[in-house]
Amino acid sequence: MSDAGPHVDAVDVQPSALGDLIRAGDRKGFAALLERLDPGDLVRTVARLEDEDRTRLLSLLDPDDAATLLGQLPEALAVDAMEDLEPVAAARILEELPSDEQADLIGELDEGDARAIIRHLPDSDAAEVQRLLTYADDVAGGLMVMEYLAYPIDATVAQVIEDLGANAEKYADYNIQYLYVTGADGALAGVLRMRDLVLSSRWRRLREIMIPDPSFVRDTDTLERLAGFFDEHRYFGVPVVDAAGALCGVVQRSAVEAAVADDRDRIYLNAQGIVGGEELRTMPLLLRARRRLSWLSVNIVLNIIAASVIALHQDTLEAVIALAVFLPIISDMSGCSGNQAVAVSMRELTLGVIGPRDLWRTVAAEVTLGLLNGLVLGVLLALVAIMWKGQPYLGLVVGGALMLNTVIAVIIGGSVPLLLKRMGVDPALASGPILTTITDMCGFFIVLTMAAALIGKLT
Amino acid sequence: MSDAGPHVDAVDVQPSALGDLIRAGDRKGFAALLERLDPGDLVRTVARLEDEDRTRLLSLLDPDDAATLLGQLPEALAVDAMEDLEPVAAARILEELPSDEQADLIGELDEGDARAIIRHLPDSDAAEVQRLLTYADDVAGGLMVMEYLAYPIDATVAQVIEDLGANAEKYADYNIQYLYVTGADGALAGVLRMRDLVLSSRWRRLREIMIPDPSFVRDTDTLERLAGFFDEHRYFGVPVVDAAGALCGVVQRSAVEAAVADDRDRIYLNAQGIVGGEELRTMPLLLRARRRLSWLSVNIVLNIIAASVIALHQDTLEAVIALAVFLPIISDMSGCSGNQAVAVSMRELTLGVIGPRDLWRTVAAEVTLGLLNGLVLGVLLALVAIMWKGQPYLGLVVGGALMLNTVIAVIIGGSVPLLLKRMGVDPALASGPILTTITDMCGFFIVLTMAAALIGKLT
Repeated sequence: MSDAGPHVDAVDVQPSALGDLIRAGDRKGFAALLERLDPGDLVRTVARLEDEDRTRLLSLLDPDDAATLLGQLPEALAVDAMEDLEPVAAARILEELPSDEQADLIGELDEGDARAIIRHLPDSDAAEVQRLLTYADDVAGGLMVMEYLAYPIDATVAQVIEDLGANAEKYADYNIQYLYVTGADGALAGVLRMRDLVLSSRWRRLREIMIPDPSFVRDTDTLERLAGFFDEHRYFGVPVVDAAGALCGVVQRSAVEAAVADDRDRIYLNAQGIVGGEELRTMPLLLRARRRLSWLSVNIVLNIIAASVIALHQDTLEAVIALAVFLPIISDMSGCSGNQAVAVSMRELTLGVIGPRDLWRTVAAEVTLGLLNGLVLGVLLALVAIMWKGQPYLGLVVGGALMLNTVIAVIIGGSVPLLLKRMGVDPALASGPILTTITDMCGFFIVLTMAAALIGKLT
Repeated sequence: MSDAGPHVDAVDVQPSALGDLIRAGDRKGFAALLERLDPGDLVRTVARLEDEDRTRLLSLLDPDDAATLLGQLPEALAVDAMEDLEPVAAARILEELPSDEQADLIGELDEGDARAIIRHLPDSDAAEVQRLLTYADDVAGGLMVMEYLAYPIDATVAQVIEDLGANAEKYADYNIQYLYVTGADGALAGVLRMRDLVLSSRWRRLREIMIPDPSFVRDTDTLERLAGFFDEHRYFGVPVVDAAGALCGVVQRSAVEAAVADDRDRIYLNAQGIVGGEELRTMPLLLRARRRLSWLSVNIVLNIIAASVIALHQDTLEAVIALAVFLPIISDMSGCSGNQAVAVSMRELTLGVIGPRDLWRTVAAEVTLGLLNGLVLGVLLALVAIMWKGQPYLGLVVGGALMLNTVIAVIIGGSVPLLLKRMGVDPALASGPILTTITDMCGFFIVLTMAAALIGKLT
């Protein structure tokens, strides 16, 4: 891809200009250029740099600025850049990020790269990252930060305030709405609101002013559970305890909200056939093509299987060639109706208003709707057929088939996500292809069987 | 729908049990039952109550508990319940919510219901809600809360601490990581970290200890801009100023993350043909059917238009009936390939790595991929055709058509979201139908024209 040409405008020229400055090592020059861009243009420009230029840029920036820039880039690009950087430089940048983001990025790296970078992190960061890496991304342990403040239950207010003052610099990035209070073996004993600390006499002990028995989550709690927790409670963060009850981190509401947004992105991408991770068009062509093909090749096989139903009824089709016009319509419209039902089931599962067990309730709600919408669509298609060919029986066949197949499609679309969830398969990934394959087969079968039965009236 | 039957298990029986207790007005009974449910089952159970029972439940609960429950329900259900409650009762519950959630719910109500409820809110809440309602949901003004603490620039530390103590109860739900400092006319002058307040002498004035010239956003800034701001800055909240520079609210990071997640939900639902708002299967059948039909009826018209291309080439089809088997395959596979490209464009737009102007860059990246994947899929389909019919020319026609149409589909899929965005049309809503209509027409045309050209070899 070239950056020059008649369709390229002012903002588009900058990646190459920036690239030149970076390759010349002109720190002042590119710093001034970056400064001039607003945040949206910055991401767009840096995302579009050649890989080497982006890596060089990150290594030339202050680690703090590099970390900020990294946080703005799509994760897939940030991971590539980390892998290309010298481990020492990568570690210096990672140091500036909170522990959960460190672990997220390192978790995406090749194992060798990850080990090399961790070796160059300060010992305390390395230990935190190692610990966080033991958790999946979508449980409390993987979402928590280790930047929180905890004090022993017998500490005095004066001691806490002194510590806050002595470490003001270090704590600057922490969210310290709450302080946590720990008992023996680091067990979570209470929380302390900053405000209560301010308003207490300096000689009092935390056990007297803390809120005892605070809410907490387990390190193994799922994202779904955490989202439910924050729906129920108006807190900005919740302490995380391990199996022994020891405080091991804090999950912030915003981290849960962000993970929920990521999950929605994945559901959308999977439904549209983008699997195996984020695709950006700056990624290598062969990687992009291979990932998309992995999905398409499953689908073409399923499509061929479904279409074989037509092949089996070729004689009917030969006799009533007009049916060939309606087969794709019935296939596509049934897919549309079924996908709507898939989406509603996915949403109801996400919102927690149904569970995998609510199969019959879901089917019942879809059957009535399918009959209604199938009737409307079927009559419409029948009228089109009749107006076109002047054959009422053709209308009956294609309209009746669409109606019947709409009912089948919404039943399958509504129930497949629940069945897959019950079987432990990701419904976002598999619902669509299963739906379209079955509804296509049924649709083709119904049209052609009905036509065969009425063949005398149709020819 | 009945709650009895052989497929219903323990958890499912509870809505009716709960309904009985609610109708009997047995507060202790249903409170005990609600208590016993874990959060997931609670939402599922309450969502499934009859509308009247749910409304009654909310009016029987403490306003505080009712507000908590409301926050856990899907928004569509919460809105229905608000409309069904007496305005006085609804207002008492709403009072317990933060101002942005109050405004969100009231903004969804019928105008009459909204006015009636606002009339029963305390004056200060009513004024806040009226103010927030003037903003769209997805700008800073619509996402901000008014529960923040601001003090005049000449106030002393002692005065602030006294105020915090005197209003501890009222401020309990506020996120007061930061305090805000205002100058003349309420202009935002600085921010003050809680920690700096704690560590300062009581006689100092805020102007001496505040951080001057703080980051802020405008009340009219878009969600996209806010998301970019929080990507760039590690803050937990940002003050919002109006056109005059006066502080008017605070947007929290978690509110932005939640709005981003909602936006993703909408993109997914629209792509799957669920339009006009959230659908839950507890909603009235006719509403659900009508909303789904509004989408389906557009699609069936587009489908009929696309299929009319087949009708125009009916003689070719009649001569080579085997083609009828391949038409739905080519239509469906092109749709799959095109939808992948739509999804990648939607994602790149969302991530801000491309803008509506990057049309040629996008097309270039899709053409190469389309040629590659088209070749693989085309060869595969050609082989199937040859194995089935033993006719190399049939393979050439269907394989060549699929290859060519894959390229067309990814070009259209990749560019339509950008074009729609440039025209100010929501790409989530319209990209799919536009894509499938054009690719179907092209696909049918290519197959049947190629077949017509080679008709001598095919029969």
